[in-house]
Parts: sequence; structure tokens; C-alpha cells
Amino acid sequence: MEINKIQHSKLDKVDPNNSAFGVNISDHMLICVFKDGKWGEPVIMPYGGMNYSPALMAIHYGQAIFEGMKAYKDSNDNVFLFRPEKNFERFNKSAERLAMPKITKEIFLDGLLSLIDLDRNWVPTKEGNSLYIRPTMFASEEMFSARISNEYTFAIMTSPANSYYDKPLKIKIEDYYTRAVDGGVGFTKCAGNYGASFYPTKLANEAGYDQVIWTDSKEHLYFEESGTMNVMVRIGDVLYTPPTSNTILSGITRDSLVTIAKHNKIEVKEERISVDDIFNAYKSGNLKEIFGCGTAVVINRYSHVAYRDFIMELPELDEKNSFAIFLKKQLVDLQTNKSEDPFGWRYKVEKKL
Amino acid sequence: MEINKIQHSKLDKVDPNNSAFGVNISDHMLICVFKDGKWGEPVIMPYGGMNYSPALMAIHYGQAIFEGMKAYKDSNDNVFLFRPEKNFERFNKSAERLAMPKITKEIFLDGLLSLIDLDRNWVPTKEGNSLYIRPTMFASEEMFSARISNEYTFAIMTSPANSYYDKPLKIKIEDYYTRAVDGGVGFTKCAGNYGASFYPTKLANEAGYDQVIWTDSKEHLYFEESGTMNVMVRIGDVLYTPPTSNTILSGITRDSLVTIAKHNKIEVKEERISVDDIFNAYKSGNLKEIFGCGTAVVINRYSHVAYRDFIMELPELDEKNSFAIFLKKQLVDLQTNKSEDPFGWRYKVEKKL
Ligand SMILES: Cc1ncc(COP(=O)(O)O)c(C=O)c1O
Ligand SMILES: Cc1ncc(COP(=O)(O)O)c(C=O)c1O
Repeated sequence: MEINKIQHSKLDKVDPNNSAFGVNISDHMLICVFKDGKWGEPVIMPYGGMNYSPALMAIHYGQAIFEGMKAYKDSNDNVFLFRPEKNFERFNKSAERLAMPKITKEIFLDGLLSLIDLDRNWVPTKEGNSLYIRPTMFASEEMFSARISNEYTFAIMTSPANSYYDKPLKIKIEDYYTRAVDGGVGFTKCAGNYGASFYPTKLANEAGYDQVIWTDSKEHLYFEESGTMNVMVRIGDVLYTPPTSNTILSGITRDSLVTIAKHNKIEVKEERISVDDIFNAYKSGNLKEIFGCGTAVVINRYSHVAYRDFIMELPELDEKNSFAIFLKKQLVDLQTNKSEDPFGWRYKVEKKL
Repeated sequence: MEINKIQHSKLDKVDPNNSAFGVNISDHMLICVFKDGKWGEPVIMPYGGMNYSPALMAIHYGQAIFEGMKAYKDSNDNVFLFRPEKNFERFNKSAERLAMPKITKEIFLDGLLSLIDLDRNWVPTKEGNSLYIRPTMFASEEMFSARISNEYTFAIMTSPANSYYDKPLKIKIEDYYTRAVDGGVGFTKCAGNYGASFYPTKLANEAGYDQVIWTDSKEHLYFEESGTMNVMVRIGDVLYTPPTSNTILSGITRDSLVTIAKHNKIEVKEERISVDDIFNAYKSGNLKEIFGCGTAVVINRYSHVAYRDFIMELPELDEKNSFAIFLKKQLVDLQTNKSEDPFGWRYKVEKKL
């Protein structure tokens, strides 16, 4: 792997412990180009502009996918990734559905390790902060024919991330707009899914909600996801989450929380959840918690969940009683090397460069 | 409008009458940037690379839309656009659904006219050829937060286009993959719709078909579109096409053909068309023609249409008997100033620059 180091680090101008999410991009990026049917040599270089024209095919035809992952520092300045093979696998699932070439494990994982190693000073030390990592692949041929691109660029960039402030959210159960459909691309992290969700989210914001819960495309009665998170519901002492499917992204946080919950003897049911189920549980006083989960926020609890004119108010459970708070702490402690790792999920970034 | 002309035209290396679709991009492009809540001054400049980094938000979150239109030359070297206000209106409909700012008529239309005027030597003269025009708008802020971008770039590029060879196609009626869904973005020309359609199309190609007919997302029984075209079916002497909806792009070719057909006393019904309707017509010998229509090819006739294992073979009607051939000639003659323009659709590009 070729490595072209930056002359002067931007770290004299950026405080990684005080950076809004995704705004300050770290010194280096990894770039690897697919051309003539094969991947070239990955290169680590200073982050910055490339010579793309507005005819870049990714912009016109949306062959563009990404991943979202994080690097964490423990109190001894060791740097860890979390289950990176999962992101690698999901990335290639997205690639296949978008008719893009698969990336090799070598380029993805070794590239990642070298890049994070080189920019390890960008990993924040402050509790709850982390280095957000953005692998992406996009069609980089430049022409106008609506067809599969012949060239692609794989890139990894990183950016220090504050811990999101996870105040309990007001949520609207979406009953018209659709995020994903059977036979569509909902299970992938492709660019088009996100742009399509902004307008419905904006409408929900304007109506006083922070975020939406997406429902099935046919009847808008079954929970799918929430914003860019998977969704979990606690009824009584059972934790429910919809099974992943071709309309639900297979979240790594979701999978980790399910595993941690079961490990801690919490009953988990991966089953469809309908609006009716929620109503009934609410009326009988059994609806305890609803929350979203994903890499960016880990867990975000919901205080109000509305379906049309009916607003359900959820109790704000304290540390001792909330599954959400318990599971979040378990997961974050594991990620930041504060606890044992019974599942083998931590992945140390060795100091080599 | 600022105009920075190219030093040496690429026309000494490119023959506009012999250019594969969308490959050779003309000398100039128009660029206009939206920032701080407003559009800046449009600039015409030499086509080429910009300084975008791989963190370009359009690549990550798919806020990216486009239009496809053409300029035509008549035998006196006059250059014409075709119903450009329709593309302008549709562009802004796409923009709204993708939570992007609307473009002004001035920037879109005046920009278009100046650009085509300046690059008028790129408009091919050969029969059936034209200058393809690609207006596009995309999120051009560079950061990783999954939210509506604050900056956008509007660009217009052009490229000489051969007439597509319109040999009759073999078509698969798609019964699993979905192009569009109620509450989704199917009615827009956003990037994500195209990338999502490439894989199903590739599978159809591998099974021996040229293209697919997209059906409704719920039952996969009703015709919606075909590839990147609207679809028309002739049963007996009646022309059917599904009404445009929030899952069907409102094609300008479709609208023009419907108008021309009615003007020529052909009965047109804008009604849902089911696979059953097609089967029944086929069995009774009344299924005469199925074709796709869009700016790129104008009309593409289908010779074979398959639903699962059942393949319908369509007769190849000659010039005298085919609605498709008749309508295509009517439309192209109007576009290229070979016939009267009873509808006021031609739009002359005056020589000013
Ligand atoms: C649509 C969507 N759902 C769910 C998730 C959660 O996935 P993960 O836990 O792997 O971050 C994400 C990404 O963060 C997402 O974009
Ligand atoms: C999905 C889709 N449907 C239909 C059409 C036809 O529209 P128009 O006739 O305006 O070119 C297009 C664009 O060409 C398209 O991309």
C-alpha cells in the first residue's frame, strides 16, 4: 500500500474532543480505483479534492454505497474497532444489489487498519466520543448513459464525532411515505435511501417530531426502522425488534444489543411489531420503552410516539429500570475496553506506522 | 451571466455525427451554486473537473436529480429545443421530493439557451442525431451527517447523441424487483431510482432479455414503466398507457405521443394495464403492439414480452400498420422542424453569442 503523508497535520486547528459530527475530516483518506475489471493498488493520501466533473456517474445514477463505523480509544490510548468484518460483509451486500464490484477484504480491512493507525491522533479520548469512519464506494466513470458504470472509487475517510446528545425523542409513525419496499434496496446502505427519506423527515420535523418510525410499504402498520436506526420495543419485560429483511437494514448495533440482552437473560423476540400491538400494550400499561439503535447514537430513547392523532407518552425509566440505558452501557463499555469482551467483538488497531 | 470560453474547441477531435450516446461531453458547461440559502450567479465555463472530495454529500445521501432533453438541428442549421418548460417543471418537482432547493426559470432556461447557443456546433446535423442535454442538481456540501445538505450545485452539460438503434426488444415483465412504490420517489428523476434498477436489469439481460417492464410494488400485476421509458400498449386500435402517478415518471415523450395520437384520431386510454389484460388480448389476437417511449430513443418497439415462463410474440407491423412507427415519425418531424407545430412545442435557440 502506497502512503503519502500530509505535510502539516490539521490537528493544530481541530480539537477531536470538540468536533460536531462529521464536519472535520481527518488528515488522510484511502483511495482505491476499480478499472478494466479489477481493483488497483490502494493509496493513502492527504484528504482533499479530486478532479471529478459534474458528469460523475454516481451523481446521475446513484451507484453509491457506504458504511458507518467507529474507532474508540481506551484510557491507555489503545485504539479499537468494533466488529469491522460485519461492515465489510454488509458493504459487499450493498455492492451486489447496486450492481457494483465487491471490494476485497484486504483492501477494506487492511486499508482501514493502516488509515486509522496513521490518523490515530484523531481518535478522541473524551468519554462517549469516537472517530467516525466512512468507507464509501461510488461510480466514478464520467458519462451520461444510464447503465452500470465501468469505473468505481473506493474511499475511506474519518472524522471525530461527539457523542450525540440522546435526549428522548418525539417520534411520528409514518403512514404515507415509504423508505423501503420488497424487491427494492432497503436492506442496503445505498445513497438513494437517504435522500428519499429527507423530505418525509422534514415534514415530520415541521409537525413537531424529531424523527419518524418507518412502516411497511403495503399497509403502513408494521414497524420497520426509525430514521437511520433500527427500532426496538419493550413490552413488559420482553424486548421486541422486527426481524431483518429485504426492507430492513441489518444493523450491527441491533445485532449486538440482541446478543447482549440475551446474554443478560433478557427475553428477546425478533418478530414483526404492528401499530395495533403497540396500542394494546400502551392501553394495558405494558408499553415500557421504544428506542432506536445505530452506530452514530448507539441508543436513542423515545418519549412520545404518535400514530396519526394518537400520541403515546412513554415513561422515562431511570438507570435501574431502563433496558435502553442498561444495554447502552454494556455495549459502550465493551467497545471502549472498559469491560470484558465475551463475544470477541473488539478489534485492536496495532501501532505499525 | 458570466461566460468563460474554452481556448480550443474539442470539435477538432470529436465528430458530433459519430458519437456514442453520452460519451463526448461538449466544450462548455453551466454551473450555478446554491449556498447560504440562495442561488449564486450562473457561470458558463469549459467542461471539466471540479475540486470535489469523496465526501461530497450527493455521493453519500443521494440528493441528486437530473433531466434529459435534446436539441435538434433542421436543414438550415437552426437549433431547436423541445418543450423545455416541461423539463424545468419536472426538475423542480424532483427537487421538492428530494428536499432540495428549486431552481429559477431564469437560471434553468436562460442558462440552457446560452449554453446551447454557445455550443451550437456540437448539435449534430445527421438525421436522427441530436445533442443530448443533461441538467443536474446535486448536494455539494462535504461532510458526513445524514441530513439535508446546505449547498447544491446546478450544472448543465451536453453531449452529441447518435440515434439509438431501435431494433425490437425482448422484454421481461418484472415480477419480483420493484422500481417504485407509493410514498416513494418513483415519480422523480433522482439518481437513486436508476442505480436501484441496474441489478434487476442485469439479471434480465443474463436471462436473455433486453429490458424489463416494471410492475406495481404490491402485486406485480400492473404495468408501470419499462426500463427508463414509459410504456404503451395497443390492443385492437386503442392505445393504452398507465396514468402517471407517484410511481410513474411523467414522461414528456409519453405526453407528446398521447397528444399526437389523439390529434390523429387514434383512441387513447390512460388506464391501468394488467398482465391479465395483456394475456387476454394476446389470446384473442388483439394484442398488436407494445412499446417504450422516452427522450433518448423516442420509441422502442417490443418483439417479445415474457411473464414468468409465458412468452408473448408480437407481430412486426410495417410502416403502414404500426402506430409506433407512425407516432415516432410524427414526433421526430415536429422536433426537427420538418412539419408544422400545431402544439407550439418547438423552441428556437436564437443566435446571440
Ligand atoms: C437505515 C439504517 N438503519 C439502521 C442503521 C443502524 O445500523 P448500525 O447499527 O450497523 O449502525 C443504519 C446505520 O447506522 C441505517 O442507516
Ligand atoms: C424512469 C423514466 N421513465 C420515463 C422516461 C421518459 O421520460 P421523457 O419522455 O420525458 O424522456 C424517463 C426518461 O427519459 C425515465 O428515466
